[in-house]
Amino acid sequence: MSLAAKYLVISNRLIERIQSGELAPGMKIPSENEIIRENRVSNTTARKALANVEQLGYATRIKGRGTFVRQRDVVRSATKILSFSQNMRQAGRVPSTKLLGVSQLDYTRQVVREIVIDGRRYTMQPPIYRIHRLRFGDDEPILLEERFISAALCPGLPTHDLTGSLYGIYEAVYGLNLTEVKQRIRSILLDEPAQSYFGLTAETPGLFIEGITFSGKETILEIEQSIYRGDTYQFTVTATPR
Amino acid sequence: MSLAAKYLVISNRLIERIQSGELAPGMKIPSENEIIRENRVSNTTARKALANVEQLGYATRIKGRGTFVRQRDVVRSATKILSFSQNMRQAGRVPSTKLLGVSQLDYTRQVVREIVIDGRRYTMQPPIYRIHRLRFGDDEPILLEERFISAALCPGLPTHDLTGSLYGIYEAVYGLNLTEVKQRIRSILLDEPAQSYFGLTAETPGLFIEGITFSGKETILEIEQSIYRGDTYQFTVTATPR
Repeated sequence: MSLAAKYLVISNRLIERIQSGELAPGMKIPSENEIIRENRVSNTTARKALANVEQLGYATRIKGRGTFVRQRDVVRSATKILSFSQNMRQAGRVPSTKLLGVSQLDYTRQVVREIVIDGRRYTMQPPIYRIHRLRFGDDEPILLEERFISAALCPGLPTHDLTGSLYGIYEAVYGLNLTEVKQRIRSILLDEPAQSYFGLTAETPGLFIEGITFSGKETILEIEQSIYRGDTYQFTVTATPR
Repeated sequence: MSLAAKYLVISNRLIERIQSGELAPGMKIPSENEIIRENRVSNTTARKALANVEQLGYATRIKGRGTFVRQRDVVRSATKILSFSQNMRQAGRVPSTKLLGVSQLDYTRQVVREIVIDGRRYTMQPPIYRIHRLRFGDDEPILLEERFISAALCPGLPTHDLTGSLYGIYEAVYGLNLTEVKQRIRSILLDEPAQSYFGLTAETPGLFIEGITFSGKETILEIEQSIYRGDTYQFTVTATPR
């Protein structure tokens, strides 16, 4: 195995330096020429080593300037209940929130929220609070969320601090347990409002998530419609035998 | 509850007729005027009923022509191991496959396949078969997939019929159990080749899936890079407490 893939040995060493934080996001990593000199390898090998680091998502080459350590994407396991705030902290980013709007949906107009998921239709009855927020990780806007929350389960919710985790409020203030979150994930093109909230101009893909959160069997706590920017956010899932 | 949302009662009835198949994909559903006449309701109510059927994804309004039952999206649970063929059959579609290419990656060039998932890097050693396929549901191209398969675990794989489920071949021919599939889901814009395989012209979003399939602990059976068209394909996941 020793002749095997000299470029891999070099790229592995670079990746270890990135993972350890020695090479931090935004820093330049060794150039092709530096790699050739330090490792006494051909330029083909040096190029393949850099290409491998880039392909695995650890660095980005900027033409004429060099290869730089990337700000890591936020990757989230989709199968565990996790608030955005916790998710950001796991990713090593500081979460923050801009409250865009709070309202109570009008009972007399018979506003009902519905969601179809796994072939079942769930209906939420008023009164419902609607909370609209833009959420950041390290000052980068990542999530535009609209949440419809049962006012029967969370009376007076708008009097609480709505710039942190709502899951935290459900648990700490209302003593509710979150038992299950079902989500539907689809790929979309960001529409104009989302683009402008995210400060993006070009057409960017996004993940559109419709979700329903239960507190106890069949008790609908909230329905959510969220847009994650697709350029920095990813989900992981693990599937097991049927 | 009886005054509650007449439009919901009407839209529920329409949805039931769609779900039962009485109103099949492509068929026109009752117009606003027909709903007004049959149910003696206002045009506001009729309009809201139609809008609700549309919003829930059961129908599409085509300007000047009416509202038509939609071909249902393919929705797949991401947490169960499921072949594309099985997934299509569940969705009531007939699966088919176009084989685009089969090759064996060259050992002497030290081609290695790697994937980073949940912070871990997995490496696949040659010899590796590469199978490139376009997969259809009811003649609609849905998935463009590239799979890298361990030739050590599946010797002679290319001599088998590659137009069906590979998972089926792994199990039936090689006696392998699929124990776990880890996937990373991100949103992309379809690139030009994918657009052309899917027969799409405008910019369409897609889901890019990188996956790794294990047969037994730590035994990598295959690595996959797949593109699903985003306009008809969705994932669902269920999250439970940490």
